[in-house]
Amino acid sequence: MKFAAKLKRAIKVSKSLVCVGLDPDPSKIPQSVLQAENPVFEFASRIIAATAPYACAYKLNFAFFESLGGEGWKTLREVLGVIPPHAVTIADAKRGDIGNSADKYAAAILDDLHFDAVTVNAYMGRDCVAPFIARPEFGAFILALTSNAGSKDFQYLKAGAKPLFMHVVAKAREWNVHENCGLVVGATHPEELRRIRKAAPDMPLLIPGVGAQGGDLESVVRYGCDAAGSMAIINASRSIIYASKGDDFAEAAGAETARMRAEINAMRKKIFKR
Amino acid sequence: MKFAAKLKRAIKVSKSLVCVGLDPDPSKIPQSVLQAENPVFEFASRIIAATAPYACAYKLNFAFFESLGGEGWKTLREVLGVIPPHAVTIADAKRGDIGNSADKYAAAILDDLHFDAVTVNAYMGRDCVAPFIARPEFGAFILALTSNAGSKDFQYLKAGAKPLFMHVVAKAREWNVHENCGLVVGATHPEELRRIRKAAPDMPLLIPGVGAQGGDLESVVRYGCDAAGSMAIINASRSIIYASKGDDFAEAAGAETARMRAEINAMRKKIFKR
Repeated sequence: MKFAAKLKRAIKVSKSLVCVGLDPDPSKIPQSVLQAENPVFEFASRIIAATAPYACAYKLNFAFFESLGGEGWKTLREVLGVIPPHAVTIADAKRGDIGNSADKYAAAILDDLHFDAVTVNAYMGRDCVAPFIARPEFGAFILALTSNAGSKDFQYLKAGAKPLFMHVVAKAREWNVHENCGLVVGATHPEELRRIRKAAPDMPLLIPGVGAQGGDLESVVRYGCDAAGSMAIINASRSIIYASKGDDFAEAAGAETARMRAEINAMRKKIFKR
Repeated sequence: MKFAAKLKRAIKVSKSLVCVGLDPDPSKIPQSVLQAENPVFEFASRIIAATAPYACAYKLNFAFFESLGGEGWKTLREVLGVIPPHAVTIADAKRGDIGNSADKYAAAILDDLHFDAVTVNAYMGRDCVAPFIARPEFGAFILALTSNAGSKDFQYLKAGAKPLFMHVVAKAREWNVHENCGLVVGATHPEELRRIRKAAPDMPLLIPGVGAQGGDLESVVRYGCDAAGSMAIINASRSIIYASKGDDFAEAAGAETARMRAEINAMRKKIFKR
């Protein structure tokens, strides 16, 4: 199935734009889970089971798995194995390297691990992105404007008539021949989100930065969705997976995901009349 | 030991500016090695043993190890273990993510794997680089101008008086309070290399793109070195590790590294009179 179709189906089936960000930090996992054979898998799999009905996507943050060493790579694979088939799986790896290295990263993430999509840093240009978008069944979310404070250092530099992040958006549109290019746009920049959506009316946007990072949810829905009130994948990580520090962490994660879905869907109804 | 001191010592001890790039591709490893228990380790460790007297640094390309899955991570650790202590070890991982994720990447690469340095993509700004340069004993090489064709897509965009890559150079200088920030500059751009060296007279430059990618070695030495004819770490990967396709691959790699060292040192002598 083409990536664009899979994403549309995931949103439809789950009636949700919520993406659950899995950044499992062993130092934040409840005590009771630490006694499991593989605490990170136990933690993540219980969160997945509890949130699955309310999420269109799962984003796995590679930094947190890589910090576990070789074991982390195995855990990544096991966690992927328990994500329900309706949901889109996103490797939040922010990869970007020259052609022959990018080929290897694409082989690792798409062919070996079987993710549906990956986040990509396009600073190095087209050949770094190409292997991730060469096949219509896999997608790539290119970093355009990120949610962090450091986004001010380079992404806003004005080159010609527009800032760097808009140059990235323009190139991503040009590269999007298989309709499998998306963009990462931080929820912390609502005005710029509006500008990017206008320039890329049909592309899926992966929007981190609500929840712990404080992005405003209504602006995200209003400016991030396409004309049909869809195609914005709104990610929350810490606010979902650490919704409770106790043994009820999974139930709390499920409840928080359901709450976010309901809040977002009410806004979609209000703003887009559907 | 501080990173800057370690690098200077490595260059002095090996009398070399050559960095051996380890991009071990199982499909290119000689037949005889494929019978070893761990062919990638066997291949890399024999190359390291043969090249060690002639190299100041080893750069391990994470793409090639990650494409081997969990086993690759283990192999990465084993390969690191046989690199001689005089040499600087560089994780060519091109990482870049927001603060809490960057912390995790730094923990994985510097604390767990014990690399001396890492390549970093600074598109996301200061907080993405900070964890890698917070401690003087570890270094980071920030992507400024890369050697690939795609470097033209964004890195040359002119913002104000200078191109994006010079903005990166300026920020890297600003961040370099522990003298542990370096820059990645492709050998395929000699004029820009000269410009970057002029703007950053003391920073170490990691220069890929000679060898298989065709960068001119004399320009690299002339424009990449500091005023003392040092601090340019000139990387070759494929031209060294695949110098021979036969069973003599390690000897051939050693000979090619020695040849590069001699050629570079002759140029250093000619150009810098030392």
